Amino acid sequence: MAGLLSLFNKKKTEPPQCSAVIVAAGSARRMEGIDKALAPLGELPVLVHTLYAFQDCPAVEEIVVVTREDLLVEVGRICKDFAFDKVTKVVVGGAERIHSVQAGLREVSPQAELIAIHDGARPLVSQEIIGEAVSAAAVTGAAAPAVPLTDTIKRAEEGRTAETVDRSALWAVQTPQVFEAGLIRGAVQKALDDGELPTDDCGAVERLGMPVTLTRGSRENIKITTPLDLVVGEAILQARGEGLL
Amino acid sequence: MAGLLSLFNKKKTEPPQCSAVIVAAGSARRMEGIDKALAPLGELPVLVHTLYAFQDCPAVEEIVVVTREDLLVEVGRICKDFAFDKVTKVVVGGAERIHSVQAGLREVSPQAELIAIHDGARPLVSQEIIGEAVSAAAVTGAAAPAVPLTDTIKRAEEGRTAETVDRSALWAVQTPQVFEAGLIRGAVQKALDDGELPTDDCGAVERLGMPVTLTRGSRENIKITTPLDLVVGEAILQARGEGLL
Repeated sequence: MAGLLSLFNKKKTEPPQCSAVIVAAGSARRMEGIDKALAPLGELPVLVHTLYAFQDCPAVEEIVVVTREDLLVEVGRICKDFAFDKVTKVVVGGAERIHSVQAGLREVSPQAELIAIHDGARPLVSQEIIGEAVSAAAVTGAAAPAVPLTDTIKRAEEGRTAETVDRSALWAVQTPQVFEAGLIRGAVQKALDDGELPTDDCGAVERLGMPVTLTRGSRENIKITTPLDLVVGEAILQARGEGLL
Repeated sequence: MAGLLSLFNKKKTEPPQCSAVIVAAGSARRMEGIDKALAPLGELPVLVHTLYAFQDCPAVEEIVVVTREDLLVEVGRICKDFAFDKVTKVVVGGAERIHSVQAGLREVSPQAELIAIHDGARPLVSQEIIGEAVSAAAVTGAAAPAVPLTDTIKRAEEGRTAETVDRSALWAVQTPQVFEAGLIRGAVQKALDDGELPTDDCGAVERLGMPVTLTRGSRENIKITTPLDLVVGEAILQARGEGLL
């Protein structure tokens, strides 16, 4: 892992530099026909909030956006209108998330040492969350933000509880998931070669037997997948504006 | 389990009757000093919303509220002011949740066949959620609403992921948790005798080797434990008012 070693030799004061792949290629299945990426959140499309977070992040040098073919023109227009000048490419994704990730990875500059893969539908990600994941990945090669589970979790069979699950070691993982560039390229290719569809990008890396460092996530870093999520997202945005969160 | 058998012999058209224990005895640790039960949510205290849901539910005959000693007068006043005439007792809870549940169970009418135990801090519970849990418990003896996990879940050791957990059989359990009266009284007593503190009331029943039927919960049936939850709760309430949810 030469890329990782070279990072260790950098001066500690130099912030790690990284490219971001923003995946906004999902269908609108759970959203009653509204498109997740373009749904309005506080007067701006969800994706605009997401892109602002990465555009404003000093650790991110370059952004590649992956979207659906029918959104290509609209997403391109958004990048131009909002002057997201870190966006170097807007490309079409694939059938499953991992195909979209692969399409994005292909367009990332070969000079990138770290690649942060982020859900386009997580518009409320903070600079701190991105920064901590990038910093941790610079040291360990793979990192992702996570939050502890707070609900009581049951394992159930045929609609009846079988046991209460010990939640103390369980974490809900968010994005951005940040990896040493060679590692994530290899892990995604290997998963595709093996015909596997990991639930997230960490899953592809874990398949290689490599652990992922968990960094501090936030319950505000929600993924917009249902109309309820949009309502919650609006409320978080407004509360932030009023200094309540 | 004679109580359960007697329920089977009832006419199918007769709705099961049940007493509710509303537990609002928690401290304000995670709420920056604001009390969960009395925090304002859409102009009314959280607990008022909760009590309205049970007061309006035809399946519920009686409500026992368990609270902290310092809130006893205020909670009593609320029940009077809002004419919650199903509330028969307001009692003081104990150090841990299970002690509060036990204090509530003691005050439930001996005639109650089913007992629904509900978090006072879940003010957005719907009639459907209460009704389905009560109906299922009338048949199986124990039921609780639950929602499937949607996040990617990792098992982690020392801050690094060990594995991705198969979430397909995992459920986040909510309240009300409804039980045949003798069963929950026995289960809570047994847990206390054994020095155990189950995370929820289902856990006390599961310890006896008895499964709990899972019924349809809702992601709107949130538990108010942090300032973020209050923001989210406000938004859900407002969206319901506007017919958005």
